Amino acid sequence: MRLRGRKGIRESLEEQQDLVILEPAQYKGKWQQLFGNDRPIHVEFGMGKGQFISQMSFRNPDINYIGFDMYDELVRRATEKSRLAWSDTEVGTPPNIKLALANIEQIENVFEPGEIERIYLNFSDPWPKTKHARRRLTHPRFLDKYRQLLNSRGQIHFKTDSETLFEFSLNSFADSGLQMTNISLNLHREGINEEHVMTEYEQKFMGKGMNIHRVEVLIGKDALEEYGKTRLEKYGK
Amino acid sequence: MRLRGRKGIRESLEEQQDLVILEPAQYKGKWQQLFGNDRPIHVEFGMGKGQFISQMSFRNPDINYIGFDMYDELVRRATEKSRLAWSDTEVGTPPNIKLALANIEQIENVFEPGEIERIYLNFSDPWPKTKHARRRLTHPRFLDKYRQLLNSRGQIHFKTDSETLFEFSLNSFADSGLQMTNISLNLHREGINEEHVMTEYEQKFMGKGMNIHRVEVLIGKDALEEYGKTRLEKYGK
Repeated sequence: MRLRGRKGIRESLEEQQDLVILEPAQYKGKWQQLFGNDRPIHVEFGMGKGQFISQMSFRNPDINYIGFDMYDELVRRATEKSRLAWSDTEVGTPPNIKLALANIEQIENVFEPGEIERIYLNFSDPWPKTKHARRRLTHPRFLDKYRQLLNSRGQIHFKTDSETLFEFSLNSFADSGLQMTNISLNLHREGINEEHVMTEYEQKFMGKGMNIHRVEVLIGKDALEEYGKTRLEKYGK
Repeated sequence: MRLRGRKGIRESLEEQQDLVILEPAQYKGKWQQLFGNDRPIHVEFGMGKGQFISQMSFRNPDINYIGFDMYDELVRRATEKSRLAWSDTEVGTPPNIKLALANIEQIENVFEPGEIERIYLNFSDPWPKTKHARRRLTHPRFLDKYRQLLNSRGQIHFKTDSETLFEFSLNSFADSGLQMTNISLNLHREGINEEHVMTEYEQKFMGKGMNIHRVEVLIGKDALEEYGKTRLEKYGK
């Protein structure tokens, strides 16, 4: 990707403090305060250009969203997507979304335990070499972190086109003793599944016979309890 | 498939009572007695032409194998495969394999609880229509049966080329609260995986870019305990 001079990007981010959080660790334990309400917080780790989280925030005004990326150029792009999503409305700054610059490696410095309700991982870097397996955002060491940060309704929603990353992730979830549900090996098998907001990447490659794999992982005890009540209903008697 | 006259097949099976079990319910609770030893019993439900179970029995003399199919023509074919597998040896009748005619719908009439240690499901009929989902051998109602029949080291090993059946099965295992491990979305990704005995079907279609999906499901408490000790070792520290 063509990157502008870093100074220009940084300035642009600094001018957009209504949307952008350059030092997210400052808000550890204070995110609800920042949003000014007690609505649940959903985050995306590795938001890329930000289409997914921007659309989600627009569709779901009762949820607060925070998109994370470690590249400032991507955070800047995400500010454009977020403002665009709300551009046909009277709203100035999109009210329920923040875009934050952070490396997920240190995510425990950004949230208190139980501070978030849902984590989205969309098309995370597959890190195909075995020696880089620890960098995959679904590696058990990351799952341990996520488990700490999620509240009693906590879930992880993961999608990827990478067969090898999905295989790795299913094993990582299973080996970590986590409850999976709604596993899909081809999310758009019967045409585009409108229920699911698409990322830029997904939209671009969808037409080319790429399978999107998806899974939900239930972490919090209330999420598990609710699931437990209905988990076998879909199979009939 | 071209089927011979049923009478000819039945006669052939009746002449091969050293290998063939036409009324397996008669041996409920007595399978070890039939084999004349107390080695573990591994079964294949839907063995088709029997290459897999025949090869497995030849490779693993310390395990007793029983292959099941509901079609007598397939049981007959499996007798040929079994005898062929042992044909270069001094052994007359293959000692550690039986081939049985049965519908898995009534499998609880064939085994006492805890009588078997492992169930193989290879390329089971995908029953693609939703209204036939209950017939899929990985439907939760079958998993309930299997759970009863397996002993404390009990496992289910499942493989299929059907993306939709695999997806259904992963969900069925997860929704049934079962522990999965060694999930593969492409068993032969790095060339033919010799560790795994192939079925006729697998061998035939392997070259044509067909993905074999595979998963192991741990049922028995000893199987789970052993797995629990090492489940995260492969991820490194």
